[in-house]
Amino acid sequence: MPEADLTDRKLRERAVAAAQGKCPFDLLIKNARILDMVTGRERQADIGIVGALIASVHSVDRTTEAVQYFDAKGAFALPGLIDTHMHIESSMITPQEYAAAVVPTGVTTVVWDPHEFANVCGVAGVDYAIATARDLPLRILTLAPTCVPSAPGFEQCGGDFDPDTIAGLLSRPEVHGAAELMTMQPLLEGDARVSGIVDAARKSGKRICGHARGLADGALAAYAAAGVETDHELTSAADLIARLEAGMTVELRVSHRYLLPEFAAALLDLGHLPQTVTLCTDDVFPDELLNQGGMPELVRLLISHGLPAAWVYQAATFNAASKIERKDLGLIAPGRRADFMLLNTLSQVCPEYVFSDGCLIAENGALTEVLKTPQIPNALCQTMQLTPLQSTDFEIKATGQEAQIATLSQPRFPVWGARNCLVKENIVVLPPDLVRMAVINRYGAGTPARVAVLENWGFWRGAFASSVSHDSHNLTVFGCDPQEMAVAANAVCDLDGGLVVVENGGVVASLSLPIAGLVSVNNLETVAKNFANIRKAMDELVDWSPPLLVFKALFGASLVCNAGPRLSDVGLVDPFNGTILKSCVVDVP
Amino acid sequence: MPEADLTDRKLRERAVAAAQGKCPFDLLIKNARILDMVTGRERQADIGIVGALIASVHSVDRTTEAVQYFDAKGAFALPGLIDTHMHIESSMITPQEYAAAVVPTGVTTVVWDPHEFANVCGVAGVDYAIATARDLPLRILTLAPTCVPSAPGFEQCGGDFDPDTIAGLLSRPEVHGAAELMTMQPLLEGDARVSGIVDAARKSGKRICGHARGLADGALAAYAAAGVETDHELTSAADLIARLEAGMTVELRVSHRYLLPEFAAALLDLGHLPQTVTLCTDDVFPDELLNQGGMPELVRLLISHGLPAAWVYQAATFNAASKIERKDLGLIAPGRRADFMLLNTLSQVCPEYVFSDGCLIAENGALTEVLKTPQIPNALCQTMQLTPLQSTDFEIKATGQEAQIATLSQPRFPVWGARNCLVKENIVVLPPDLVRMAVINRYGAGTPARVAVLENWGFWRGAFASSVSHDSHNLTVFGCDPQEMAVAANAVCDLDGGLVVVENGGVVASLSLPIAGLVSVNNLETVAKNFANIRKAMDELVDWSPPLLVFKALFGASLVCNAGPRLSDVGLVDPFNGTILKSCVVDVP
Repeated sequence: MPEADLTDRKLRERAVAAAQGKCPFDLLIKNARILDMVTGRERQADIGIVGALIASVHSVDRTTEAVQYFDAKGAFALPGLIDTHMHIESSMITPQEYAAAVVPTGVTTVVWDPHEFANVCGVAGVDYAIATARDLPLRILTLAPTCVPSAPGFEQCGGDFDPDTIAGLLSRPEVHGAAELMTMQPLLEGDARVSGIVDAARKSGKRICGHARGLADGALAAYAAAGVETDHELTSAADLIARLEAGMTVELRVSHRYLLPEFAAALLDLGHLPQTVTLCTDDVFPDELLNQGGMPELVRLLISHGLPAAWVYQAATFNAASKIERKDLGLIAPGRRADFMLLNTLSQVCPEYVFSDGCLIAENGALTEVLKTPQIPNALCQTMQLTPLQSTDFEIKATGQEAQIATLSQPRFPVWGARNCLVKENIVVLPPDLVRMAVINRYGAGTPARVAVLENWGFWRGAFASSVSHDSHNLTVFGCDPQEMAVAANAVCDLDGGLVVVENGGVVASLSLPIAGLVSVNNLETVAKNFANIRKAMDELVDWSPPLLVFKALFGASLVCNAGPRLSDVGLVDPFNGTILKSCVVDVP
Repeated sequence: MPEADLTDRKLRERAVAAAQGKCPFDLLIKNARILDMVTGRERQADIGIVGALIASVHSVDRTTEAVQYFDAKGAFALPGLIDTHMHIESSMITPQEYAAAVVPTGVTTVVWDPHEFANVCGVAGVDYAIATARDLPLRILTLAPTCVPSAPGFEQCGGDFDPDTIAGLLSRPEVHGAAELMTMQPLLEGDARVSGIVDAARKSGKRICGHARGLADGALAAYAAAGVETDHELTSAADLIARLEAGMTVELRVSHRYLLPEFAAALLDLGHLPQTVTLCTDDVFPDELLNQGGMPELVRLLISHGLPAAWVYQAATFNAASKIERKDLGLIAPGRRADFMLLNTLSQVCPEYVFSDGCLIAENGALTEVLKTPQIPNALCQTMQLTPLQSTDFEIKATGQEAQIATLSQPRFPVWGARNCLVKENIVVLPPDLVRMAVINRYGAGTPARVAVLENWGFWRGAFASSVSHDSHNLTVFGCDPQEMAVAANAVCDLDGGLVVVENGGVVASLSLPIAGLVSVNNLETVAKNFANIRKAMDELVDWSPPLLVFKALFGASLVCNAGPRLSDVGLVDPFNGTILKSCVVDVP
């Protein structure tokens, strides 16, 4: 639903009168326990609400009148949580389903980078995000994706956002700012397109969000000097401190939970919570969203790692509101928007009640209103534009008896490796510890499947294919057997996009994602169940080895904008070095 | 000088290159000691600057090239101080002189409410503020005065800012926000004019600054619910906590230094510095500005009262920048504006060097460039529009033998008092412990002098007259002898405005303030010396008794917008109760 206008004069005049007891509040929350996000202290208070506005937070001893009363029964009152960086698409459900999932957990605001929809569908993906955000009980601040594609020249996707596109998107009032600038390397090298994109973002006067994966020292300074304000790609406590010192706003994320203990320790060591620390989810899989939630899980984990609850909630509310430049949000205080939750336990974010714009919007884990069935625009449908694949598409061609193969060694943080392999009948024979990865353009380029060889990815039995593959979301297939890989790939196309697991030559698990090849039309429960089945099936195929070799790594293996060699639809690429190899066969030894 | 444009693409591209060592910095500050305003920690660092931008803050071990080098010799580097609420007029010098005084003390940004000029000269006063701010090495963010006059209907001044005036001012890009809303009482009562002014401010989307003197509980909530964001009128630690809990930004001010120990204790008790705490000067007299400075004195005092230096500087820099919504300011970090100072001792703000927009602007206590002599517009000259006064103007007329007089009892926080006095020849005879105060309209109203009787203001010998008298700045005269009061009043008119002390029938000290009757054309040293002479002469006339009966109380005695009865040019007024008495003679007992 559209936000209530807090500049309305009558509303404010009523709030001024009600705060003084000259007229009744519309709603009075009695007997709340405020955990004050400014002082860090707790106090008993009643919250008087007029329209969408908090008019008064006052002592429970004061008698005030209201049209409607609501007994908080001593529950904690906390501002609605703000997720400062996320992609709804990663949860593989529609924004409607997403709102239905997170609002009851106390999340009332998310900053959505519809980067995945934009990579698949171009500006139509952003239009969809903006349009769908209008009618939800969740406040969605939509960003303009800045990296479509994420590594221009090193991958192809379904959109092409040049500086003019970005300027156009940022001129729209519904667009909150520029989304994570993943094109770090071209920016640092003075690439004209990326420099122009950042220039358009600076001139818009809106926020410029970042993705500073692996940047340090001069590179990090250069990135911040360009005007990029935030980062969520921290991989160590040293990263965290470096970004705080660089004046950046950090977005601690739930998606990399193994890092949270060291982040918590580093903040405890500082002795205070900097105002530049906020929380985000980034990417949350459907089963995780259903079972643990995103923001609630992050809050729970950070508290369990020793951070004071007041710090954690402050990061998720007041700090976030300040940094996203929404001074109406983030506090339970007069003059602010009435967005808050009532919950009994700080260490577990399971609010009994969630209010937004002064209205009860969720109760005991469910929205108070059923949302309309979403309309999906045609531009987001039937996005798998490629012809059926055959096992030969996944073979690696070579001549002679033996070939040197350039490998991608290690999941998540790939480095170049090399292996010598036998060649039989002009086909490379891979030893059983090597896994094949293939990426096939799904935007009608008609280019052949590119095949890479992965080292240290464990032993695989079967194949996995996905139309979700950050960030270009080309069809990506993993496996050892080319035949099984072809079966998996074609099954994904038959679904109009999705995830498929093949074992012993046949499909054993699948999830249909017909909206842009990223998102299901089904509800979260169904998607989560199917996704959990995929995960379980994959557990049978691969011996995962955390924190690097994990299921999640499959979806980021083609994330070309990050450091290190990667496979994209144009070949084996290393944008940081300018490398493009169409084949992994580098030499006959 | 106009601010450098940080959205300039070439500038940013050079900064990105320089941060990586691909081209030289314009300026490299070597061997600085950063007190980090985010982490609170100290570290050695070099600061690389390109144009007006900080491009890099990096380890002193890293070798980087620059066109120009500057050795900080281990001095602390701190962001330029930001004064979040002040009136230049209170220092009785021109903005040029003010800049020359404060910039060398490390103040690079002030948020100026030209409320005094506006009260005397109307919109022309604001125009002057905006125009004069353009050419200074001090960043002046000009606010739109919202209370001209401060108590409509209870005083008359030289301007009349209705909602349309405010909307017009706020539509100007040079106007940063709406200045302190002193019209608390009419706002709380729903007065149409004040409600319209706040409505215009809210609709502008700009900041709304406050003045919540004495507000608590429902009244404070109502004030915040109207959208007012800040307050500097704290009179106790309880006030401080109440405002923090109300989500307001507090501006701790140097002008009420006796309150600082309890503010410091309250913050220490919180255990952290809320991001909503900033520092300001509000009103600083010329001799104090010269001798102690405003912001530097406040920083020194707060540290001396036990606050960690990192907290105090954070309040004055990063917190302030966040709350005035200037994300280019307040940090020494890449991508921020190069506004900073180098100083050797944190507990005394005596910077050796001050930089702004990447240029050295002050060195060892003085600006590096001589400022142009200011042009004073005609609208600000010859503002004493009244005819010569006679001793009879200061007499209190009554009939009969005895009269009951309504008195203003107690300086600073006046309350109604009453005294019975003898009447001789239709003139009230005051006992020697009572002091006369008179206010005479100086904007051509032609109304008679209004006379009040002050209790608990000590024993006076002689008279004092001033055209500086908050906030309407009508001619205000204090004394016991009507003849001496007339001499003082006429001397102020002869000066075209100013301050005059009369003793034994003759002028013993005077300060000419011909610019709007508020500001001198002389330099700070001269003004401070003359002002100190006034102060000294007044010390001879009055036995001051701090904290209430102090010299400063003379200038605020007519501040009608604050609670309690006051004397204005229309009579004895109490706007909170709606009282207007044209004479202090209330009854024949």
